[in-house]
Amino acid sequence: MSKGVISKDEDYSQWYNDLVIKADMAEYSPVRGCMIIKPYGYSIWEKMQSVLDKMFKDTGHSNAYFPLLIPKSFFSKEASHVEGFAKECAVVTHYRLKNDGSGNIVVDEEAKLEEELIIRPTSETIIWNTYRGWIQSYRDLPILVNQWANVMRWEMRTRLFLRTSEFLWQEGHTAHATAEEAVAETEQMLEVYADFVENFLALPVVRGRKTPNERFAGALDTYCIEALMQDGKALQAGTSHFLGQNFAKAFDVKFTNKENKLDYVWATSWGVSTRLIGALIMAHSDDAGLVLPPKLAPIQVVVVPIYKHDEELENITTYVNSLRKELIATGISVKFDNRDTHRPGAKFAEYELKGVPLRVAIGSRDMQNGTVELARRDTKTKETVNQEGLAARIEALLEEIQTNIYQKAANFRTENTTEVNDYEEFKRLLDEKPGFLSAHWDGTAETEQRIKDETKATIRCIPLNNKQEEGKCILTGKPSTQRVLFARAY
Amino acid sequence: MSKGVISKDEDYSQWYNDLVIKADMAEYSPVRGCMIIKPYGYSIWEKMQSVLDKMFKDTGHSNAYFPLLIPKSFFSKEASHVEGFAKECAVVTHYRLKNDGSGNIVVDEEAKLEEELIIRPTSETIIWNTYRGWIQSYRDLPILVNQWANVMRWEMRTRLFLRTSEFLWQEGHTAHATAEEAVAETEQMLEVYADFVENFLALPVVRGRKTPNERFAGALDTYCIEALMQDGKALQAGTSHFLGQNFAKAFDVKFTNKENKLDYVWATSWGVSTRLIGALIMAHSDDAGLVLPPKLAPIQVVVVPIYKHDEELENITTYVNSLRKELIATGISVKFDNRDTHRPGAKFAEYELKGVPLRVAIGSRDMQNGTVELARRDTKTKETVNQEGLAARIEALLEEIQTNIYQKAANFRTENTTEVNDYEEFKRLLDEKPGFLSAHWDGTAETEQRIKDETKATIRCIPLNNKQEEGKCILTGKPSTQRVLFARAY
Repeated sequence: MSKGVISKDEDYSQWYNDLVIKADMAEYSPVRGCMIIKPYGYSIWEKMQSVLDKMFKDTGHSNAYFPLLIPKSFFSKEASHVEGFAKECAVVTHYRLKNDGSGNIVVDEEAKLEEELIIRPTSETIIWNTYRGWIQSYRDLPILVNQWANVMRWEMRTRLFLRTSEFLWQEGHTAHATAEEAVAETEQMLEVYADFVENFLALPVVRGRKTPNERFAGALDTYCIEALMQDGKALQAGTSHFLGQNFAKAFDVKFTNKENKLDYVWATSWGVSTRLIGALIMAHSDDAGLVLPPKLAPIQVVVVPIYKHDEELENITTYVNSLRKELIATGISVKFDNRDTHRPGAKFAEYELKGVPLRVAIGSRDMQNGTVELARRDTKTKETVNQEGLAARIEALLEEIQTNIYQKAANFRTENTTEVNDYEEFKRLLDEKPGFLSAHWDGTAETEQRIKDETKATIRCIPLNNKQEEGKCILTGKPSTQRVLFARAY
Repeated sequence: MSKGVISKDEDYSQWYNDLVIKADMAEYSPVRGCMIIKPYGYSIWEKMQSVLDKMFKDTGHSNAYFPLLIPKSFFSKEASHVEGFAKECAVVTHYRLKNDGSGNIVVDEEAKLEEELIIRPTSETIIWNTYRGWIQSYRDLPILVNQWANVMRWEMRTRLFLRTSEFLWQEGHTAHATAEEAVAETEQMLEVYADFVENFLALPVVRGRKTPNERFAGALDTYCIEALMQDGKALQAGTSHFLGQNFAKAFDVKFTNKENKLDYVWATSWGVSTRLIGALIMAHSDDAGLVLPPKLAPIQVVVVPIYKHDEELENITTYVNSLRKELIATGISVKFDNRDTHRPGAKFAEYELKGVPLRVAIGSRDMQNGTVELARRDTKTKETVNQEGLAARIEALLEEIQTNIYQKAANFRTENTTEVNDYEEFKRLLDEKPGFLSAHWDGTAETEQRIKDETKATIRCIPLNNKQEEGKCILTGKPSTQRVLFARAY
């Protein structure tokens, strides 16, 4: 509850919000639902981008850029797509302001657009309209394109990073000659996301498929990764869609196949967003502040000198400079905080709040003894260690911290994933011990909706490689062949 | 005139447009004035971003992200700023579409915004509104922030990369305690831009300041770098603005200085955009296609095998793989084009069009002789060289090409920069031998405007460190103490 951050057990939602603000990650803007991503928060996004971008390129994708604005008519071409996005989109209607003569700046009604333009909530329509010009034959396929961009969905209830009207994301849009190839791409990108979230965000995920109800507007199949937050709510961390030929049909994108016949092109799209920063914060942090996995921490090691006299600082600085050099050479980011405007205690609290994985404190006695004090953010443990071999020790510790943070989240998920066979028990657990509830479902949209209406729990996914077992739907008692994963969700 | 590209001497403007399209750099979109940046064009932007981003960080800047949409009222707060941008901005008025009952998707008039939002044409207003909350004391200064973003200016006459309604750019926005510090930042960033354009785009620039007429809307002083294109027109390649306290006053951003007095904060902003890709193309390319400086070429070396039988290809491939390994180890990007669907001649033409700096061709006879054929894109020269030591030779050649492209552009600029003392001669040169015209000017906005109206030439800049000399204004004959640089411009 330090520094104005409420305890997460007291009010998880407020704790999250306080933490985002106090740790200098982001703040709300005067534009409803839009956020300002501050340098510290943005540097985590940059790390995510750089890792993901390499993963996309290693799997053969290239980046491109498509227009922010989409003609309204494009939107209407794919029926379920417009249905899904029309209710929450920003509409551009004019292209000029003017001075009304009495000094007020007003919209110039003479500059009204013939056709309204929508700020992209996602880019399938404008991209598939473009692909029509790029694809004639199977030789032009596959097209493996990704875009890093801002998108806008006019959300009514927003939360920093988790749900904002404007957010940053990447959206992959690929075109294929066969359904099989498109499905393989969809699955490949889901695995890329799962790999990224598990190995970099240190957050275990369940790979699965959405029910028809929960699919992306325009998709035949939506794959997703689902993670569990510390309050027992689920968070969808990434999606990968098999779009079939829906967009090719809507935008008339045909190709000549190897048999010299015309066919519609097969599509996928997949995306993750700045929402991942919200997941990262929610999954690992504590009442003292952020806990960042070393692989995504903007600063991995901070060094704080403890001294009274300038000669002491000089002495410490000489040592720290050589340590820094060693660490930087192994790719570890280090900050030496030698500000004389703040006391060591204030610095400790600041880096704890900001989730720096390792803190090194060095005083004059340490210099005499050839030691330093090493403090881990994740376990809040401290130890005095020798300066000799410190760089190697830090390198190993960072790996250990990454693993430990993951393991803690994995244990939490195990403890909060329950097989349930009774609807009363199901409802009780949702209130008393929320988490993933693995239960039988009769496969109908009606049942899914009733459970949602009655409990606010949704089917997060049908896990991939799900065990087949006979069972009875938790609500209707009708026969079922597999369990699905329910939870309340962000 | 190959591959549908017209000769640049015949029609420079058409040549540029054809080249952008044929080389797969970009294309127009269905949204008026907006472009689609294709993967090949975007990969050049990515290279530019990565170099500039490092330069910004090396000079102490961090990235952040501010909202796309700006409340209309923010715009009106700085008088000359709104004057400069109101006439060409996209206005969001509604936040929902609806089905009108007969299947048409229309704007939902019930979802009209109370205050219209403007898609950012630049972010000074939203950022300075934010800085108010970040700055209390001199200890909070300087703030050194950069943003990579899309912006929108509703241009009536657009050209791919050079002038589009939406474009990508970076905008630095810094806050300082003193005017001197802000001016130093403005000058530092101009030098960063000049360094980048000269050393990476291989394009010499003139560093200078704009006349009051040509300043950024809201700036006290605008610094710029100006480059000369092959048709003798100038292109503004980057600007850095000293904004004084204008935005701090408009958004009430005050701080307590070291003397414990309240004062307004001093500001700078600076930006370069995807326009640089247009400059890159225009400055160096020829009738056969792009000529890219190696430091920004997405592919630096392409290897084309020449063979009839598969065994020959196998043999060549073994060698190429070892060459690639060597090249990649020194950071050189290589593409081995072993497609069997295209003949070597077609491949040669493709990479010429796309401006790949070096082409290596290898046939069976080369393999017997231990040689390859090396072709330079910039000079269009070919030579047969030994495979032994080839990687080192390629590395040296790429540097030589970078230097040569720069030198060619520098020579062109020298040949097309003329000191003029007579207005008739000035007009004649603009038509017959366009380029930079260095001439005396009486320093008044009226004269500047008359020259612009009569000749379409503008004052590109007052060069930094300009030689002081007595002279007479080319139009009015009034006394002048220095020459300024005129040109027709993009």
